[in-house]
Order: sequence, then C-alpha cells, then structure tokens
Amino acid sequence: MSELLATYVLTDPGSDPEKKAEQIAIGLTVGSWTDLPQLEKEQLKRHKGRVVRVEKTEGDKGEQQARVTIAYPEINVTHDIPAVLTTVFGKLSLDGKVKLADLEFSEGFKQTLPGPRFGVYGIRKKIGEFERPLLMSIFKGVIGRSMEDIKEQLRQQALGGVDLIKDDEIFFETGEASFEKRITEGKKVLQETYEETGRKTLYAVNLTGRTMELKAKARKAAELGADILLFNVFAYGLDVLQSLAEDDDNPLPIMAHPAISGAFTSSPYYGFSHSLLLGKLNRYAGADFSLFPSPYGSVALPKREALAIHEECTKEDVFKPSFAVPSAGIHPGMVPLLMKDFGIDHIINAGGGIHGHPNGASGGGRAFRAAIEAVLEAEPIEEKAKRSPDLRIALEKWGTVEVSA
Amino acid sequence: MSELLATYVLTDPGSDPEKKAEQIAIGLTVGSWTDLPQLEKEQLKRHKGRVVRVEKTEGDKGEQQARVTIAYPEINVTHDIPAVLTTVFGKLSLDGKVKLADLEFSEGFKQTLPGPRFGVYGIRKKIGEFERPLLMSIFKGVIGRSMEDIKEQLRQQALGGVDLIKDDEIFFETGEASFEKRITEGKKVLQETYEETGRKTLYAVNLTGRTMELKAKARKAAELGADILLFNVFAYGLDVLQSLAEDDDNPLPIMAHPAISGAFTSSPYYGFSHSLLLGKLNRYAGADFSLFPSPYGSVALPKREALAIHEECTKEDVFKPSFAVPSAGIHPGMVPLLMKDFGIDHIINAGGGIHGHPNGASGGGRAFRAAIEAVLEAEPIEEKAKRSPDLRIALEKWGTVEVSA
Repeated sequence: MSELLATYVLTDPGSDPEKKAEQIAIGLTVGSWTDLPQLEKEQLKRHKGRVVRVEKTEGDKGEQQARVTIAYPEINVTHDIPAVLTTVFGKLSLDGKVKLADLEFSEGFKQTLPGPRFGVYGIRKKIGEFERPLLMSIFKGVIGRSMEDIKEQLRQQALGGVDLIKDDEIFFETGEASFEKRITEGKKVLQETYEETGRKTLYAVNLTGRTMELKAKARKAAELGADILLFNVFAYGLDVLQSLAEDDDNPLPIMAHPAISGAFTSSPYYGFSHSLLLGKLNRYAGADFSLFPSPYGSVALPKREALAIHEECTKEDVFKPSFAVPSAGIHPGMVPLLMKDFGIDHIINAGGGIHGHPNGASGGGRAFRAAIEAVLEAEPIEEKAKRSPDLRIALEKWGTVEVSA
Repeated sequence: MSELLATYVLTDPGSDPEKKAEQIAIGLTVGSWTDLPQLEKEQLKRHKGRVVRVEKTEGDKGEQQARVTIAYPEINVTHDIPAVLTTVFGKLSLDGKVKLADLEFSEGFKQTLPGPRFGVYGIRKKIGEFERPLLMSIFKGVIGRSMEDIKEQLRQQALGGVDLIKDDEIFFETGEASFEKRITEGKKVLQETYEETGRKTLYAVNLTGRTMELKAKARKAAELGADILLFNVFAYGLDVLQSLAEDDDNPLPIMAHPAISGAFTSSPYYGFSHSLLLGKLNRYAGADFSLFPSPYGSVALPKREALAIHEECTKEDVFKPSFAVPSAGIHPGMVPLLMKDFGIDHIINAGGGIHGHPNGASGGGRAFRAAIEAVLEAEPIEEKAKRSPDLRIALEKWGTVEVSA
C-alpha cells in the first residue's frame, strides 16, 4: 500500500509524544479507532494513518522536541499538492508548535509530478557552460524607470559576462516596461551583446498577474522568445508552479523566487522547513531554479538550512536536479567560499555585488567571472586580482572572505 | 495618489526603527533615494514608498517591538493580491522578525476585489433565519466510509436542526463518495429531511483538485445543485479564492477553511496576523464564511485574535460582511459564552459537540438549538434544560461555561 510520509518537529510535545503522534495519525485519517466495531476497523484499516517513528530531540535553545514521522495512506488523497498539504498539515498547522520538516512521496505519486523540465544540465546546455557555477545578476531599482533605462541596465549587466539576468520580483506591469515589451526589447539587447561578446545571456522575466491567466501568459512569453520565467511561487501556490511546469505549450525554464516564503519558513517552531519548501517541493513541482537567502548576507539563513536546500535541489531522485541560487550579500571576494559551500552546480547571484562595482555593472560581472576562474584554476583570488583590475577593485571595496578548512 | 498601507510588527528592530522603516519604504519601491540625481528623483518620486508612522511597542513577553506603517504607491503594483503580497511582504518576509499585521487598500483598489457574493444576509436568506446565530456541524471520520454511511451521517445531522453541514476538509475524491455524487446524493437526503422537518439545511461540499480545474469544477457543482463550496484557500492562494468568487457562472457561496494557515499565522514574530489573513483578506477575496480556531478548545486562538478576525469579517466596509465561524471545542454549554463573544451574526460550528451527544448527531443538534433559543429568550440554559432532554444530557456530559460580565 502506497503511503505518504510526513515528518514533523513538535516543540513542547508534552510528556507523551508517542500518544500525540498516535492522535495525529488517527485524527488526520479515519478520525477514531480504538472504539470502532471490528467490522468498521476492517473497512477502514487501509485508510488509517500509522506512526512510523517518534524520536525525542532538543531544539537549538534546549527546547523539548519530538521528531515524529507519520505514514498516511495515499488512497486518502488525490494526486495533487494541495490535497497532500491539507491532509498532512491542514488542521495540524493550527495545533500548537508543529513544524513540517519533510515529506516523502511514493514512486507512484512522484510519477504524477513534473519535476524540472530542464534542470541543471538543461540550463547549462542553453548557456553552453558546463564546468563552472553560473553567474546571475538582478535588475536594480527598475520601478518607474523608462524602457531605455532598463535596456541600458540589461546591456551593462550582459557586457560584464553574467550568464543570467533576472527581473526584480516586485516588478510587475507598471509604466511602459510591460511584460511583453521587456521580453521583446530585452531579446534585442541580448542579441546585440551576444554579437559583441560571443557570450549568451538569458533573461528571466517576472511572470505575474492573476492565477487563472498565468498559463496563457507563459505561453505568450514563449512565443515572444522569452528565455526564462521568474515566478513568485509562494504568492500563488506550488500547484500553480506545477501547472506551469507540466504545460508542454510553455517550454520555458522556471525560476522560483522565495518572496513571501519567510512567512512560513522563518519560525523555528511553525510552518515548513526551508529544505522541504524551497528545496524539495519547488523541485518536485517543477522549478528549474530555486532562489533562497544565502547564509552570508544581512538577510541570512543559517548555513545548515541553506546547505539543506541545496542538497534537496541536487540529490539523486527521479527528477532532474534543480539549480540552487543562494542570494543576498554576495560579492566577488566571497566566490571561493560559495564554491566550497555549494560546489560547481549552483548559481552565484548578485545584486549590489554587481551594480555597486566602481566600474559599473559590467565591471562587477567581470570581477565575478575572474574570481570564478581563479577558484577553478586553484589560484588565490588575490593573485588573480593582480591581473584583473575589476577583481582588484572589487576586493578593495568588499574584501575577501576567509574559507575555513 | 493612491497608496497601499502595510502595517508591520518588527521584533528586536534595533536601536533605530525609524531608519529601518525608511529602508523598507525605499528598498521595496525605488531601491535607493538619497544618492539619486535630482532629475531621477523627479522621475521616481511618485513610485517611492513613505513611512507613515513608527511606534515603539512591547511584545507579550516584553520583547522590544516597533509597529511600522509604510505607504506603497499603488502605481507600483497590478491590481491583484499576489502583486500586493509580493511587494509588501515578499523580500521582507525573509528579513528577520517581521509580521504583517494589516493592509489597507484604497477605495479604487477595493473596486477590483469581489468581496463576498452573499455575505451574512445572503446566507441568512438562503436559510430563512435572520435573528439567531446559525448552527453548523461537521462530517466526522468519513474517509473510507461508504456512500450509504455518509448519507446516514448527513441525515442524522440534518434531523437535529443544524442549518449547515460541512465536509471534512481532508475529504477529497476517494472511493465511491466522489464530489459529484456527494452533491447529488446529499441533495436528495436534505430534500427528504426538509420534507420531514420543514427546516432547510445547506451542505458545503469540499472543492478540491488542481488549481486550474477549480473554476470548471465549481460551475459543475452549481449545475448539480450544490449549496456551498468549502474551500481550503491556503492550500491554493487568495487569488484563486478571488477567481472563484468573481465568477458569475459559479453562483455558490464559498466557505474558507483555515487548513495550513497555522503555518503562517501562529508565530508571534513571523507571518501574517490572524485578523488580516483569516478576517480581512478572506473577506475581500470573496469568502462568505471564514472558519478559524475558536478561543475555547484545545486547538485555540487567544481570544483577542479570534475577536479581531470576527471584527474584520463584519465591520463596516464596501464589502458585505462575512460569517465568522470560530471552530473547535464547541459544545452546547458554551452557547451563552459564544453569543456573548461573537453576537448574533456568527456561526456556531461543532464536530464532537454534535456527534458525541449520547443521543447521536440529531440529539446534539437539538441540544444546540435549545441552548440558542434559551439565550435569545434570556433564559438560563440550565432552566431550558429542564424542558429539553437533549440539552440536559449535553450539559451533563460537557457542563456549562461561565459567562463573565
């Protein structure tokens, strides 16, 4: 019998976490058990949840916790993420300090989920780079800007050698820089820079608007020649991401932005674990990229959380691996640490670390590319900086970050 | 210039919450300000956020907090809830201890939102009861049951005189009790009980499945003669609720269930306030009913939170009021307290307090109805119990709850 396994962390679970676990397993499936007549037990047993394990643990502050895994018969749900989440964390999310740490789907259930259409290798093929982290920059302060300003910003970023450029997630359809115009005009700019430099740059345009119109809008974007869709999945829902990813008439990679996700991952006691939401579920539902706060900046995740997301994006599974994109607080002097922590298969994503470069966004891009080259060649970036003026200036501005052994 | 006002509670905001507020107002709109050339300031000023107020407060445990209101120019967003939430709480939700306490929309923005199609008065008209709280019961332990079992459960609940009966939110399309069959068979049962008792009972069927198919499924439900759609809005998204509510081909009331919402309302430091999410946003997006944990049961909200949700459901606005449905831990002896706390215009919703009655679900319903009558007639329920055997048995089982002045 196929089951869905949900693992929770209960904080202050009381003196008998086994009993609490049993209440969850029964309460979220058949409702009651011990007092049922034998005949009803026969009828209901294949619908009954069961406790797989209960482990007493401790929180970071010494809180009493229990890590509880419950198996839910898959027969109780339809094959969609809303049904799964409602079952395993609907009522329960309202029941005291309980955090959903992990979900394990059966192989049969996984067959119904899309996973990334492109994944790490598919994105690399589009760009033609296979052996280094990719480099991404973020549009900066574009709200209210003219289309000309936006095109110039795109151009400067591309000239510096970034592989990807993403819209700001709060950029919608304001002013003249509409979704369609950004795609078509952006494409022209990136074609020009390609002709100048021989390097491909992909632009991730922000897919926004009403839920029921997103599929049509995504198809339109593909027709217009868009490269990638940026998507604020948590403003919509994982099921919407899934619908976009499994639509064969929308052959575009999807970049999942973590906007709003802090509302349900930040608390140590409530909500979802980072690795489940931003790692596993984003990947299973079809995100080719998953952005999340890096462990370095002022808006930071604990490093073990960031690494756990990366692990969920890339580990062996029936789905293609997705690109982890640790974001915020990234500058060129941090590249050795980033590559130590996240390896080759991740995306180095910078905003201020590109745009704040004294030689402008193109200088920022060049500095990052030089730093990546150095690490690949096992050369200290300070040495590389002697031959790369942009990297030298970046290191002077932002410094380097110690890579501990 | 129209603005969106967002109010946040920042915990441990540092020594200069005014500066932090200014950073939010700039960072989530034009990106930077003080160093911009005058010409760019002219171009961007109508897009710039502004700090409306900053108030230092204290949390329940003496935490240093700041209550901060930021005005965002409406011109920055499209008129949809995902754009609003991404702007005011996208990146910011990831930025330390910050809770979104309230949102205020301009009159113009409100014009684009549906609000409840029926609201309190519209629902009352369907039932024909205008001067008492309505009574609702919840299906219990239906997973794996036969259609015959479910019909009998429906019948017993209706015979007790409940006005509404709702599906369990974890009941999808399993076994023979499909969505369509529940509607058509349920309708027959409730027609029979109506003929027996002369009392109308409405059944809220659980609308589930893939997001992109919900509109068609809701229309189908209406065609089949469904009464109300139960909807796990937080498994999908407020924008999906809005699409259902504004669809003129779906003329059914919508009952919003709070499943999963605990993941983003429970923490005192992160996520959304209960009143904003379960009260205001549910109402604005079109829910005719909003369920939430009552302040009485084992799964309880603090009373001030529950009352704040009720207030948002019913207060003067351009939208119709919605029905607040405080749920869990409700039994007949609690009716005087419920009516004191939530007044006439709310729904008394019981699961165990109906089904656990020694005379069965119909006895539970009769006990509640008697208790409601007593309060309306200003008679102590203990007095009423002398003439209502079902109420007497209920009070013996669950006791009464003191109503403090």
